[in-house]
Amino acid sequence: MNQASLILHDFQSQPAPHQAGQGAILEWIAAAHGRAETVLRNPATAGEREAIEQRLRKLVLRFGCSTDRIHSRGAFLDDFTHLDWDRMRIFRLDRWPSGAPCGERTRFFQEISRQVFERYYAEAADPPAVLIHVTCTGYASPSGAQRMVARRDWGRATEVVHAYHMGCYAALPALRMAAGCLARGKARVDLVHTELCTLHLDPSQHLPEQLVVQTLFADGVIRYTASPAGDPAGRGLELVATREEIVPGTEDAMTWLVSDYGMQMTLSRKVPDLIRAGLGGFLERLAGAAGVSLAGLRTEALFAIHPGGPRIIDELAELLGLRPDQVEASNGVLRRHGNMSSATLPHVWQAMLTDAAVPAGTLIVALAFGPGLTVSGALLRKAG
Amino acid sequence: MNQASLILHDFQSQPAPHQAGQGAILEWIAAAHGRAETVLRNPATAGEREAIEQRLRKLVLRFGCSTDRIHSRGAFLDDFTHLDWDRMRIFRLDRWPSGAPCGERTRFFQEISRQVFERYYAEAADPPAVLIHVTCTGYASPSGAQRMVARRDWGRATEVVHAYHMGCYAALPALRMAAGCLARGKARVDLVHTELCTLHLDPSQHLPEQLVVQTLFADGVIRYTASPAGDPAGRGLELVATREEIVPGTEDAMTWLVSDYGMQMTLSRKVPDLIRAGLGGFLERLAGAAGVSLAGLRTEALFAIHPGGPRIIDELAELLGLRPDQVEASNGVLRRHGNMSSATLPHVWQAMLTDAAVPAGTLIVALAFGPGLTVSGALLRKAG
Repeated sequence: MNQASLILHDFQSQPAPHQAGQGAILEWIAAAHGRAETVLRNPATAGEREAIEQRLRKLVLRFGCSTDRIHSRGAFLDDFTHLDWDRMRIFRLDRWPSGAPCGERTRFFQEISRQVFERYYAEAADPPAVLIHVTCTGYASPSGAQRMVARRDWGRATEVVHAYHMGCYAALPALRMAAGCLARGKARVDLVHTELCTLHLDPSQHLPEQLVVQTLFADGVIRYTASPAGDPAGRGLELVATREEIVPGTEDAMTWLVSDYGMQMTLSRKVPDLIRAGLGGFLERLAGAAGVSLAGLRTEALFAIHPGGPRIIDELAELLGLRPDQVEASNGVLRRHGNMSSATLPHVWQAMLTDAAVPAGTLIVALAFGPGLTVSGALLRKAG
Repeated sequence: MNQASLILHDFQSQPAPHQAGQGAILEWIAAAHGRAETVLRNPATAGEREAIEQRLRKLVLRFGCSTDRIHSRGAFLDDFTHLDWDRMRIFRLDRWPSGAPCGERTRFFQEISRQVFERYYAEAADPPAVLIHVTCTGYASPSGAQRMVARRDWGRATEVVHAYHMGCYAALPALRMAAGCLARGKARVDLVHTELCTLHLDPSQHLPEQLVVQTLFADGVIRYTASPAGDPAGRGLELVATREEIVPGTEDAMTWLVSDYGMQMTLSRKVPDLIRAGLGGFLERLAGAAGVSLAGLRTEALFAIHPGGPRIIDELAELLGLRPDQVEASNGVLRRHGNMSSATLPHVWQAMLTDAAVPAGTLIVALAFGPGLTVSGALLRKAG
């Protein structure tokens, strides 16, 4: 127990306006790849053009995340709702086969971010002492958090902090930041994740690795509150311990950087093996920090596992000998929402918190992964 | 005193390899603006071309920060050492009048960042418990911090956190993050700032506001350590209190966002007035948090003021009735280095710490500004 004691509660997710079945999304992405490739190759005949489109569709359907793993995903951008390329805001592929350059993607992120914070905080709401904005998919200052605070005239009550560009595991460093704020005497820390992953899709990138990424990631927005443990009368998840490690020699296994046409990800096939290889020791150390046994966690705890890839939940469940019910919340979030980067784990936590079948006292092992390779974890306990 | 008690020490700045006098830098920037404009306008005759170059040179020399305010600035990029546009890495203006798109700027940032962390941490060095990487000028994961930790096999000892995209005032939220880590029981937190501001210059932007920004900002890299107060035997700066506020209704006064050709800043002329208007009350509240009187600070304390603009130090000194010696360290850093974004305040702190003429017990008011508008401050005390 090396953590300041805190409790997470009041989870509120904000669904993206455009929800679609994975089958329809795969078809949209296939069409975008076909279009990007025909723009780049400029085929002479309709037959050649059709052949390109067919080939790309086959590739996307072969390597993309299947509809049994992900049922639906959400997006904020209208572009995904039609195939009229001239009307696209980002994916005007005839002009930019990769989609628009960074500026337009940032502006869109900025607009959505503003709306998200406006919706989360009513004029008459009680301002948090600290507001942590978590994202790795858009960088515009003032951020949505800062703008809302400036408009509400909360500037003297609320400190804004950015937890940016850490990646899918960022909910966990953000949790440590919140714990630090509470340890310094702050009464209430709000955390808001705005991840617009679909904004960075590049339909000119046809490598299998890119097709996995493009058909896996989705948009996700969620807010929750960290208070000193015992503070709110209601239910919540108490933080018992956190642990974060960077796996040696893995610097190039996963990368995420600002590039010409949005942000670009690379993902080595070795990542699942690298995670599996180090995970046992990592969990021993996390359990040790909490003063509990790993064996006990493996039989008793629920596992909130970030679905970094389509198979990672299954693979870790197998490695650790977990029952399906121990990872059902993780699988459910993946099925309903896809990988929403840092917003994913909080959705899993929310599912576990609101599930009446999960009794108070249940321990929850949270696990996420990101560039570094960083393996990040926390042990939580359902309270209330 | 609402802060966990910490002491800052072991400041080590890493000078950028290309140091140049402000006069020479102004001439380079004038030449770049002339070149960008001739590329955009494509003049028919040598005479027209010369007229464009002369006009842009005049503009840059008129609105740029003068050589009496800034003597020299440093940069990591070779481009600034010559005018052979074909040999430029970022400023190949014949191809891109704004300089290269985001990707190449990110890659350069990534290379320099790697080298900076390699130089800061020897193989045999003692790993910090937490390493906070502070920047608003390059986003690439794994970061230089993560790569160094992965290569050194420090992953089990050192947690890496990113304090990104907050702007010039980021040293202060980073300090609060460090205080939070120490409050959670961490023994040593290192902070490393890598700000490559010159990378985002856009010579096709000739507005006076842009000319001020382009001739003010410079690269800056610095590392320092936060330990529990009283821990290191030697000298350091103790954190007494911090305070941060967002000024209501100022969302559009200063912006900083990822755009097509690097990151772009806007800066309203009203910013100095907005800061001046709110500063008295802000300082009262900061002094109150520390249990000292503002009147006492105005006569006794030194002021570490972030040189957000060329005149802000003078203006605040006048507003607060400060003597020149109270702001000399701030002016000295501006003269020697320019505005190095978030790396600037730590350079001022370093100067105050190493200046034997500043006695132990001296109080230091740190002030910085950024998008929001955010006004951020801290009260420090020289110890040792």
